[in-house]
Amino acid sequence: MSPKERSAPIGVFDSGVGGLTVLGGLRAVLPGEDLIYFGDTARIPWGIKSPQVVTQFSREICRFLERKGVKAIVVACNTASAAALPVLEQELSLPILGVVRAGARHAAQVTRTRRIAVLGTEATIRSRAYHRAIEAIDPGLRILGRACPLFVPMVEEGIVDGPLAEGIVEHYLGDLRGEEVDTIVLGCTHYPLLADVIRKVLGGDLQVADAARTAAMELKDLLEEQDLLNPSLGPPSEQFFFSDRTPAFQRLARLILPGIPEDMERVDVESEDFRS
Amino acid sequence: MSPKERSAPIGVFDSGVGGLTVLGGLRAVLPGEDLIYFGDTARIPWGIKSPQVVTQFSREICRFLERKGVKAIVVACNTASAAALPVLEQELSLPILGVVRAGARHAAQVTRTRRIAVLGTEATIRSRAYHRAIEAIDPGLRILGRACPLFVPMVEEGIVDGPLAEGIVEHYLGDLRGEEVDTIVLGCTHYPLLADVIRKVLGGDLQVADAARTAAMELKDLLEEQDLLNPSLGPPSEQFFFSDRTPAFQRLARLILPGIPEDMERVDVESEDFRS
Repeated sequence: MSPKERSAPIGVFDSGVGGLTVLGGLRAVLPGEDLIYFGDTARIPWGIKSPQVVTQFSREICRFLERKGVKAIVVACNTASAAALPVLEQELSLPILGVVRAGARHAAQVTRTRRIAVLGTEATIRSRAYHRAIEAIDPGLRILGRACPLFVPMVEEGIVDGPLAEGIVEHYLGDLRGEEVDTIVLGCTHYPLLADVIRKVLGGDLQVADAARTAAMELKDLLEEQDLLNPSLGPPSEQFFFSDRTPAFQRLARLILPGIPEDMERVDVESEDFRS
Repeated sequence: MSPKERSAPIGVFDSGVGGLTVLGGLRAVLPGEDLIYFGDTARIPWGIKSPQVVTQFSREICRFLERKGVKAIVVACNTASAAALPVLEQELSLPILGVVRAGARHAAQVTRTRRIAVLGTEATIRSRAYHRAIEAIDPGLRILGRACPLFVPMVEEGIVDGPLAEGIVEHYLGDLRGEEVDTIVLGCTHYPLLADVIRKVLGGDLQVADAARTAAMELKDLLEEQDLLNPSLGPPSEQFFFSDRTPAFQRLARLILPGIPEDMERVDVESEDFRS
């Protein structure tokens, strides 16, 4: 690989700001790499939408990142990883990596009871992408999928503990008690903020699969294999693009990534320029 | 007005399927009119987004409806009525009407304690559009605004009664008890499905302002004034367009409008054709 390609940035995208948790994982595991983040806050959320629409939005964003000169793309969004990744892998010439396989791998490693609960959006659970990924690793594992559509809006509302948060978690997950599940996959970028309340409601010694960090380690292996690691010793740069900006999004972004700059750029995803 | 203009359909749009409640109101009040409905399910929800983005999406849909030959447009979405209507009124040559003024008028008519609570999305409440509309009718009325971001996803989840629904309503509205509020404006198309649980939690003799029916009556007056009522005696036609289709959307659409046809058309809002 040429030095130019090695020093190119890594692109990360998500339906909104939740994918900043994955960017945090990349920072920790690949501290020398430049990063470009895109959050599609104008069209968020994706978890209630069809695979066709999620694939279309993802494809547009990948083209945007390609025009920005990235050397690889991380799909930080679980819904897009589940619904769009196979198509994107075929269409793109760049390496592209999702969070589903990473989450599946981590869960398969840590479970002892061999029963794993996968929590995600309706689209992610309906796609059965985690089921397939976990079964590909070990077909003997038992997987229970649970769509939890209120989890994203409650996190965006800051309802992450207290009686109401516990009531919502109980509504979706109460029936998992007695199922001998010892490992849960938080299959949506917002869900790590609910890990504590989920542990409190379900009790016991629950393992939580961390897709963000596992995905970053997978990407590191892949960049090494393809001789694409950035040899630069200078401080890495980060750029942030969002398709909409509101006070609530900015609040959540700062909650996930305290140092995020104020001057995030707004990209008009409805413009000719973006879609061409 | 020419017979052709009079027999043209009325366009109705919303961020999703909730605006079908407004279409129901139009059916009841204007049974001879043809209707074209557009629900932007690919980019739903709008209530968490900026006025710029909501205006842009609304503008694109109005152009689509104009190309379909509508004689008037009803903005069934409260967020778009609050954030985009003033701009759309200036840009369009057609009569266009929102739901905010209608809801405000109904509330001002029915309150006796002269204290009105307006419930809506974050964008609707932040815009203060209901405050301005109610104050324009009677500046002596006291208005309490409450953004209730979990109400839309809970309705879409079918959580409209029971302890969890009551807990969420209590979270947002519990502090209204003791405020002598006797009238609430359900300032979002989904909220009418929560009227019963809100009445149960708040207790007392609560009046609920019905923007859907009031907006239909306003439109009827306006069409009469402009000599645009459809003189046809044939059975009216209805067309439905959505930018995305999922089983969950279709389930909710049938819940609101039981007779809605199965063959709703999907419009690609990302295509050149739609945006030109």
